[in-house]
Amino acid sequence: MKATKLIFLLTLLNLSAFADNGYRLWLKYDAINQTKILENYREEISSIYSFKSSETISIAINELENGLEGLLQKKVQSDPTIKPGSIVLLKEEDQPTHKITVDVPDHEHGYIIKNTIIDQKPVILISSKSDIGILYGVFNFLRILQQELPIENLSITEEPKIENRILNHWDNLDRTVERGYAGFSLWNWQTLPGHIEQRYIDYARANASIGINGTVLTNVNANSTILTPEWIKKVKALADTFRPYGIKVYLPARFSSPIELGKLPTADPLDPQVIEWWEKKVAEIYKVIPDFGGFIVKANSEGQPGPQDYGRNHADGANMLAKAVAPFNGIIMWRAFVYSNEVPDDRAKQAYNEFKPLDGKFDKNVLVQVKNGAIDFQPREPFHPLFGAMPNTPLMVELQITQEYLGMSTNLAYLATLFEENLKADTYAKGKGSTVGKITAGKLDNHSLSAIAGVANIGNDINWTGHPFAQSNWYAFGRLAWDYELSSEEIADEWIPMTFNTDKASEDSIKNMMMGSRETIVNYMTPLGLHHIMGWSHHYGPGPWIKDKPRADWTSVYYHQADNKGIGFDRTATGSNAVAQYFPEVARQFANLDTCPEEYLLWFHHLPWDYKLKSGDILWDGIVKHYYLGAEQVKGMQNTWNALEGKVDAEWHRSVKQLLAIQYEEAVWWRNSCVLYFQSFSNRPIPAGLPKPDHDLEYYESLEFKYVPGN
Amino acid sequence: MKATKLIFLLTLLNLSAFADNGYRLWLKYDAINQTKILENYREEISSIYSFKSSETISIAINELENGLEGLLQKKVQSDPTIKPGSIVLLKEEDQPTHKITVDVPDHEHGYIIKNTIIDQKPVILISSKSDIGILYGVFNFLRILQQELPIENLSITEEPKIENRILNHWDNLDRTVERGYAGFSLWNWQTLPGHIEQRYIDYARANASIGINGTVLTNVNANSTILTPEWIKKVKALADTFRPYGIKVYLPARFSSPIELGKLPTADPLDPQVIEWWEKKVAEIYKVIPDFGGFIVKANSEGQPGPQDYGRNHADGANMLAKAVAPFNGIIMWRAFVYSNEVPDDRAKQAYNEFKPLDGKFDKNVLVQVKNGAIDFQPREPFHPLFGAMPNTPLMVELQITQEYLGMSTNLAYLATLFEENLKADTYAKGKGSTVGKITAGKLDNHSLSAIAGVANIGNDINWTGHPFAQSNWYAFGRLAWDYELSSEEIADEWIPMTFNTDKASEDSIKNMMMGSRETIVNYMTPLGLHHIMGWSHHYGPGPWIKDKPRADWTSVYYHQADNKGIGFDRTATGSNAVAQYFPEVARQFANLDTCPEEYLLWFHHLPWDYKLKSGDILWDGIVKHYYLGAEQVKGMQNTWNALEGKVDAEWHRSVKQLLAIQYEEAVWWRNSCVLYFQSFSNRPIPAGLPKPDHDLEYYESLEFKYVPGN
Repeated sequence: MKATKLIFLLTLLNLSAFADNGYRLWLKYDAINQTKILENYREEISSIYSFKSSETISIAINELENGLEGLLQKKVQSDPTIKPGSIVLLKEEDQPTHKITVDVPDHEHGYIIKNTIIDQKPVILISSKSDIGILYGVFNFLRILQQELPIENLSITEEPKIENRILNHWDNLDRTVERGYAGFSLWNWQTLPGHIEQRYIDYARANASIGINGTVLTNVNANSTILTPEWIKKVKALADTFRPYGIKVYLPARFSSPIELGKLPTADPLDPQVIEWWEKKVAEIYKVIPDFGGFIVKANSEGQPGPQDYGRNHADGANMLAKAVAPFNGIIMWRAFVYSNEVPDDRAKQAYNEFKPLDGKFDKNVLVQVKNGAIDFQPREPFHPLFGAMPNTPLMVELQITQEYLGMSTNLAYLATLFEENLKADTYAKGKGSTVGKITAGKLDNHSLSAIAGVANIGNDINWTGHPFAQSNWYAFGRLAWDYELSSEEIADEWIPMTFNTDKASEDSIKNMMMGSRETIVNYMTPLGLHHIMGWSHHYGPGPWIKDKPRADWTSVYYHQADNKGIGFDRTATGSNAVAQYFPEVARQFANLDTCPEEYLLWFHHLPWDYKLKSGDILWDGIVKHYYLGAEQVKGMQNTWNALEGKVDAEWHRSVKQLLAIQYEEAVWWRNSCVLYFQSFSNRPIPAGLPKPDHDLEYYESLEFKYVPGN
Repeated sequence: MKATKLIFLLTLLNLSAFADNGYRLWLKYDAINQTKILENYREEISSIYSFKSSETISIAINELENGLEGLLQKKVQSDPTIKPGSIVLLKEEDQPTHKITVDVPDHEHGYIIKNTIIDQKPVILISSKSDIGILYGVFNFLRILQQELPIENLSITEEPKIENRILNHWDNLDRTVERGYAGFSLWNWQTLPGHIEQRYIDYARANASIGINGTVLTNVNANSTILTPEWIKKVKALADTFRPYGIKVYLPARFSSPIELGKLPTADPLDPQVIEWWEKKVAEIYKVIPDFGGFIVKANSEGQPGPQDYGRNHADGANMLAKAVAPFNGIIMWRAFVYSNEVPDDRAKQAYNEFKPLDGKFDKNVLVQVKNGAIDFQPREPFHPLFGAMPNTPLMVELQITQEYLGMSTNLAYLATLFEENLKADTYAKGKGSTVGKITAGKLDNHSLSAIAGVANIGNDINWTGHPFAQSNWYAFGRLAWDYELSSEEIADEWIPMTFNTDKASEDSIKNMMMGSRETIVNYMTPLGLHHIMGWSHHYGPGPWIKDKPRADWTSVYYHQADNKGIGFDRTATGSNAVAQYFPEVARQFANLDTCPEEYLLWFHHLPWDYKLKSGDILWDGIVKHYYLGAEQVKGMQNTWNALEGKVDAEWHRSVKQLLAIQYEEAVWWRNSCVLYFQSFSNRPIPAGLPKPDHDLEYYESLEFKYVPGN
């Protein structure tokens, strides 16, 4: 007896020596650190009761058991009877059996969490129309405990505002990840379908915890091999793994697959053989993956094949595929990220020009997937003018979680602020309040089909995301996909205690650091509306000098238009008139120098170096000051973080400290490069009091980088 | 007070819910599971005492603290005074201060572990001439506890038998790993030198625990970029991290670097400019990495540049580099894995033919690195005839830990049996007992410089090695590098309890499975001396039909020589006479059908299909039976493993169970492919009672595999 007790205690002890490597993400379930709250929880929660079982309900119970054991430091187990303090998992249809009636949301995946009485016993009820809804409720309940919030008067009603909440993995079949900075692809295709890595399960679990319900497994720059029978088997193994977590699998469809795999002479979407090939291929997929989500297509964009190769338009291409998946309730996500191969009009205008005329021409199971801005996931962009411009077509926003343009894996950037800025941007399509979020949710034009996409920042690094703080961006994307009206601050308030489990003052410091982090990067990379001035091809570091490339709109000089007189891209009526693509309220605001937010100034206007900013500074001085401010702000982050030593896990602290040191170097590199380069046009001095760059422009232009990941 | 206690208890508990993902390797330090032994250890061990501190000693203390906390489930801490039950870490030079005299090995890195009395107190003394020796002793001591062995009468004296115990990483700078099946390279070059991943530290720690003291960071198929100033900084960061663990860093030297980096017109090793370029480059490296180990060179081999491009020989090339590193005590490891680009003589003979005449011509800081066998890391090869043939040159054996030819990451292969077979192989160079191990250790010809290389099987998979059991091969290589006379069984006896911490009967089952695993693979891949009949280029799966490739000796038909009359490569006097490269005792044994071990039969002999084997079977039947036996043996492993459910960690069990299922499929695939293919020559039936293959030969020949890793 004594020995048994000893052994039990010992088993519990055995991992304590190991630091937090980040693998557990926000599902750490470390012990509640406020003693009173802990004692309260231990009193309030006694057991877990569920009426019916299923694979998903088992997962929910298991999550509760593990979570509560960690948080409450006691075993809370499944019990076949309801007790005072039971957590009761009940589908709506089983409420009558338990003589209760508690409203649950109409949405199949909505749920309630509520203190109530069953059989005269006080319980915490989690109820939904579906098993998945219950699982979502369980994760929410655990989140409440992780935040150490009261659980006496819970009355939570939640349902997703967007139907399809999808991660886009730009993972190649050789496991490299385009624009991936967290190692390599999670999908070990070589050992699939036979070997299911624990990581696939933990991936599904993490996604379910934030309501993500779809995943595009591989790169939009698609490879038709994924559609061969051998690879469909591998995809099926992943789909089977993800299904009980409520996650559907989607694939990219390479438009030329009928030629590459089917040996047809054409991929013309109106060709009967092509149509038949896709129908058969789709049937083959659904035969083994009955809940396959559908396809994403990047067509006639950056060299990808598409319907225009055959004189057809995007709607022709999308609808052909849509008809193939429609009998199985599949959807097509057709990307609007296109720009002409010909000498371009302003690239910012092209998606609008090409897609707006097609509004209303798409089948009803097609969504058009539009990047948040019209260029390409820059640190800051105004919202894409297509939002609101295609009322008869469900549009879905594509956000980039991976930090292609925001410092890869070495810069701390909490992107929820960027996502929030975009989702709350008002298009004025139907007057005030016509936000991008509302459009994406289908609520502005009453589309029942809605979706949102985030380009994943997940790789096989132990901590999943490279930079430890990048976990917050995966988290934030999921939470905003569920509820686009959440604020970035609310999300930080959830994520920080779940991740750090430290004291309130430390959590506040961390929040301050996170909330300002993206603006800091804007300051030292692309202040005042500058954009697309990064290094060539790999996009690592500054490259405002990039010119003379195969396409003008792949260069930096095309975007900043700096000359001896001034800087900025004139997108008003005197220039490309891209502003005219916005609804009048917005167009006027952006076009008018008095109302254009300064953060978009050089996006829309070419201005003289001595243009007066609101601060009273001339433009040149303002630009330079932003660059210097950005670098100083990184120093501020370093100070904040240094003060947190001992307050956060040691391994995290060391890692982030080193990364912030790199970030500071990179900020100075950006600052010096851009200031020196633009100075060669402005011919004005760096404002007094600011230190001179320690190298000359030639030095910065000469830097070369090999083997940058994600390229 | 109560709250504090609670919190303390709780902290210990918080990771218990998580299964073992393999990251901790053999350094798990889970609680001793035999209560009596645990109680005994808890009584015997009280504290840790060390006289002097250093970074290495701190690591040793930290390892003891963590290890003992896990194993003994109590805090055992550093104490400034010696107590009864102290573990005393003492350099030899500090013994007099403590009024004791205990002999330690002459070898700087040798150590003793001994129960003794200091100041009338019984202690466990770990002593060495060096800090690293003490660290090695600490790891050995922890290993003893992990094996739950008695610690009352310890009297251990250990010293390494080989000086340089080196892992060769075939990691490319883009983080792909040639012949790597455990994910991608550990080295995240993009974030180096600024960011030191915890993994680098844990890598060093794992290596130090088994005595590995060198690592070649990148691929022998070398990239000169690693020698540029920016990349040397990255290498320095790793070298700094590894140094306190006693691990030196080595790099591959691309022979043409003076051209690629130095812009010289030549890389001729006798050209003064070339010599000067290397001298400067070497000085540049040693300036920042003062203990840099030296270079490995693959020259004039499989397309790599080398001295022969300039009419010089291997010794000219090696000596030029050797002179550059000699002032810094660096070494050159020059690979003997060469075969002519011309129409080849028997490829097995070429390294010998090219290198033997150079014996005595190498500078004294050059080692010639020779693969265990003359072809290429096959499941079974006779030892390389160069061993013993170059008495005036230090030879080092190169073993392949990564399973290029033994089932990649899906087959369970405990390779210590292969390594042992090779190291104990007797060359008869100086009569009986002239083993490969002894030659590698420099003990046969009294070379003070000695080394051994293992091609690493380590990647960024969470469990480091892909297949969980492949951890045993990393472990075994390290242990054999330290002491080539260990048996594979002794090593299994160490590794299994360290890794599984289960009951004796389960450990025995696991050992049986491991000990037979490599022979099982030989049976279903290359029985009876067959070799090099794998899939083209990626080497995945069977490919006995491979022919008509750019080089005859890259095909399978070249090696198996199957025709209607028989099968096998005649390497006797009637054939290539490769046997003559061995010393007479061995040559006679291999050449004579009566004495040639059947496991090498078809390596040395071309025999008719009806040749009588010792079993009484004709050759054809014997081959077929081996193939069928191999597949059956995998079934046996599956049964063994299934019975271990609940006895080993659940995550390991599920993973290995799935991998064994894949292995069975792959064994059947090998079996069917080879039997059907060879049957097309033998025209004989599959022996009665054996099931017919379920596909025809055409099917197997048609299989194609894309994106096989490591290729």
